[in-house]
Amino acid sequence: MSHPTPARSRGRKPAHGEPVLDRALRLLTVFEGHDGPLSLTLLSTRAGLPKSTTLRIARQLVAWGALERTGDGEFVIGLRLLQLATLAPRGHGLRSIAMPFMEDLHKATGQHVLFAVRDGEHAVLVERLSAHRAGRVDFRVGGRMPLHSTGIGLVLLAHAPAEVQEAVLGADLVAEDSGRRVDPAELRRTLAQVRQEGTAVKIRGVPEPMASVAAPILDARQHVIAALAVIAPAQSMQPPAMKPAVVAVARAISRAVRSSDIALGPGSDGQDS
Amino acid sequence: MSHPTPARSRGRKPAHGEPVLDRALRLLTVFEGHDGPLSLTLLSTRAGLPKSTTLRIARQLVAWGALERTGDGEFVIGLRLLQLATLAPRGHGLRSIAMPFMEDLHKATGQHVLFAVRDGEHAVLVERLSAHRAGRVDFRVGGRMPLHSTGIGLVLLAHAPAEVQEAVLGADLVAEDSGRRVDPAELRRTLAQVRQEGTAVKIRGVPEPMASVAAPILDARQHVIAALAVIAPAQSMQPPAMKPAVVAVARAISRAVRSSDIALGPGSDGQDS
Repeated sequence: MSHPTPARSRGRKPAHGEPVLDRALRLLTVFEGHDGPLSLTLLSTRAGLPKSTTLRIARQLVAWGALERTGDGEFVIGLRLLQLATLAPRGHGLRSIAMPFMEDLHKATGQHVLFAVRDGEHAVLVERLSAHRAGRVDFRVGGRMPLHSTGIGLVLLAHAPAEVQEAVLGADLVAEDSGRRVDPAELRRTLAQVRQEGTAVKIRGVPEPMASVAAPILDARQHVIAALAVIAPAQSMQPPAMKPAVVAVARAISRAVRSSDIALGPGSDGQDS
Repeated sequence: MSHPTPARSRGRKPAHGEPVLDRALRLLTVFEGHDGPLSLTLLSTRAGLPKSTTLRIARQLVAWGALERTGDGEFVIGLRLLQLATLAPRGHGLRSIAMPFMEDLHKATGQHVLFAVRDGEHAVLVERLSAHRAGRVDFRVGGRMPLHSTGIGLVLLAHAPAEVQEAVLGADLVAEDSGRRVDPAELRRTLAQVRQEGTAVKIRGVPEPMASVAAPILDARQHVIAALAVIAPAQSMQPPAMKPAVVAVARAISRAVRSSDIALGPGSDGQDS
């Protein structure tokens, strides 16, 4: 998720000392940390690039459709990226397989249904079906979720490669609701339990008390490639009662994944590139 | 949607005669015309670039996350593009506003519910909710739909700027189901009718007889920024009976758009950039 390795582009740098593609990707990265349109000034400041360079690259991205300009001349992420992103097998590819089953689970429970994949040391929320009256959930589609403090994250972490688990366990983790430091030994026990039971149950105190029950999605090689969760207000849900529905639907999605010929990127074989 | 204007990058071309960013966008464009993973050979052939150049640029795109490599070493669109695309106001921004209302309409009708925006002379399907037992629809999320031969497209075309309408009317249009040429004068009358009635009704013969009822989504300036449609097997749906539900939900979404502070790209003011 960091900038591309400079070694790859050695000897191909333009006058200003950095490859154009690197700069273009840096402009796009600015949007990840910002909600809403960006003026040329703000875009160039945040990217750390001269205004003239920013404008030239941004115009090229607009011409292709990666960015669009609003009526005010500010820049926003363009529609063409959505068209392209829907071809990502680990995103919309898996999503289109899971969606009908998620709708069933959503109708059956009346609660939030979430579907996520792991990207490095985070989970990425691929889809969320929400009820009008279901409780408040902070996570948005396309956004990141922590692996250590969400049900869906715990499932993905429990089945992640050893080096990913060690990196997360070695970080200074804090429980968002209590603000207390997470004990690595306790998290390790939790992950072992998740692997043994086949589900993760997590109660979160923020933004309001919510309980989640999550289960893994497996591919043909029995590797965990995604996770499914139901989230409901803690006082309304008995997690043990929700488990069978979540497990059954996760198995149905896994079966549909196996019978599709979807080609997955890193994570599909439990490895990061 | 064509390649960026070469004039912009004059004097900044690397040795091979074309800017690196242009080449990177060309690699991404290859994926738009291809479903599934691409080998390095196929990617370089379709992009018309040397294998060494393709590999260097593709690796940079992999390092950032725009592409991912499968276990076989082939390239697929990466998850990071999905994360970025969810920030596109005309895509997921509008979608997240529309989604709860679409779910209501889907539950109320039990039929396909589609939500699309216009991109040049095409509609782009932003979301589709489908019932297990609803008829077969060819359009996929993120994919293009013709403006002249779908209900949702007719609504978007009827409210498009004059030059877009003339471009579509001037093209050699064919009705997919009958294979017959579309009469521009008749299409012009249809568009006038759509504007007057506030809805479009379209029966398509392929892949099976389906009827659609579509209505526009308006922003605070009363500009049409998107369209909503219900699609059902032609024999099961009486379009006049479906109109009130589609119109009511389209109005509810329009109200939600107005009360949000979403910043839209081109098309939001009825203009292309």
